[in-house]
Amino acid sequence: MPVFTKRLQLTTRAENEVVDITEEVQDAVKESGLDAGVAVVFVPGSTAAVTAMEYEPGLTKDFPEMLERVAPSDISYEHQKRWHDNNGRSHVKASLVGPSLSVPFDDGRLILGTWQQIVFVELDIRPRRREVVVQITGEGPSTRGRT
Amino acid sequence: MPVFTKRLQLTTRAENEVVDITEEVQDAVKESGLDAGVAVVFVPGSTAAVTAMEYEPGLTKDFPEMLERVAPSDISYEHQKRWHDNNGRSHVKASLVGPSLSVPFDDGRLILGTWQQIVFVELDIRPRRREVVVQITGEGPSTRGRT
Amino acid sequence: MPVFTKRLQLTTRAENEVVDITEEVQDAVKESGLDAGVAVVFVPGSTAAVTAMEYEPGLTKDFPEMLERVAPSDISYEHQKRWHDNNGRSHVKASLVGPSLSVPFDDGRLILGTWQQIVFVELDIRPRRREVVVQITGEGPSTRGRT
Repeated sequence: MPVFTKRLQLTTRAENEVVDITEEVQDAVKESGLDAGVAVVFVPGSTAAVTAMEYEPGLTKDFPEMLERVAPSDISYEHQKRWHDNNGRSHVKASLVGPSLSVPFDDGRLILGTWQQIVFVELDIRPRRREVVVQITGEGPSTRGRT
Repeated sequence: MPVFTKRLQLTTRAENEVVDITEEVQDAVKESGLDAGVAVVFVPGSTAAVTAMEYEPGLTKDFPEMLERVAPSDISYEHQKRWHDNNGRSHVKASLVGPSLSVPFDDGRLILGTWQQIVFVELDIRPRRREVVVQITGEGPSTRGRT
Repeated sequence: MPVFTKRLQLTTRAENEVVDITEEVQDAVKESGLDAGVAVVFVPGSTAAVTAMEYEPGLTKDFPEMLERVAPSDISYEHQKRWHDNNGRSHVKASLVGPSLSVPFDDGRLILGTWQQIVFVELDIRPRRREVVVQITGEGPSTRGRT
């Protein structure tokens, strides 16, 4: 089976920034030359996450605000007592949302809803340089036997 | 690698309805003719989610009630201020639970716990017609070299 | 496409135990003989979950404490009224975190952050014997055309 790996580079500006990476993932699918399969979008890091949402200026605030209710910035974390880097909440939120999203594609196009984007969520407390891995597995047009 | 795509059609009746789709996903694995691999279950839409749970009438209430604590229906959302569709909470909960679930299978059978079902969760505030995509990748009995 | 299945056996000691299974998953990738692809880590069971985190003694407390805020142990669950097994919270938390994680690998190595581990989280209220399935799909060095 063909496997195609694409590494995206991002620079985030602040905690809770939500970055729309749909176009980059779609480009990777196109570059892979594969017709049908799955794109696994993965963040190698423990203070950021990947999910899907309607990418619009309201929800990019609502989603982090929901996470603040779950892992408030004004409570104490055991992580802080040991490492003193003030980002206990970042880790906890990242593990909850998760570092991985699997999106199917067909005819070389991601199967997404009309108002659904693939997003990277910066949960660390400072700007970061980030890498996102897009791992694409599937079958090419030829093996699919199209004419 | 063979890839098999199945699209399931659902009609939901209300917010927080939990639909057991295990049998439909298992049928898709059978139809694929593949022996071993992964079934990616994906919702193209930003106000519904897919996960796994013991599908019984208690938990199908407990799970949405937990989500209500995380994204209450009686607080204001930025999404609402812009779009006025009253479903800010739906979006936020959908992004948290996630639109995707990857389930392995072997010998043509999903590897699930005895009390574990694959479920679609309607998080929008009104009944919806929904599509769920099951993307199956793996290997057939022949390529596996069974006798 | 080659598919390689490995089943890991775990014995947990208590609710909220977090087990680092990164090495076992990496060993499975090595055993598969595959060069590049995706490892799907899946828990067949409805009261445990899989995610990623920096595995250190602070966060292994902070993460379960966050889940306790979301699904407290001192409230009533519908599940309890029917089944009387006292683990309604376990089910709800497991469905939220999810039973599945997809991790890409290349050159036979999982692509993880330096401080990022794959973890199993015991959410049931008593010690359990657990199985975790690692389903590996991808391509071998030969099919990749390396020299």
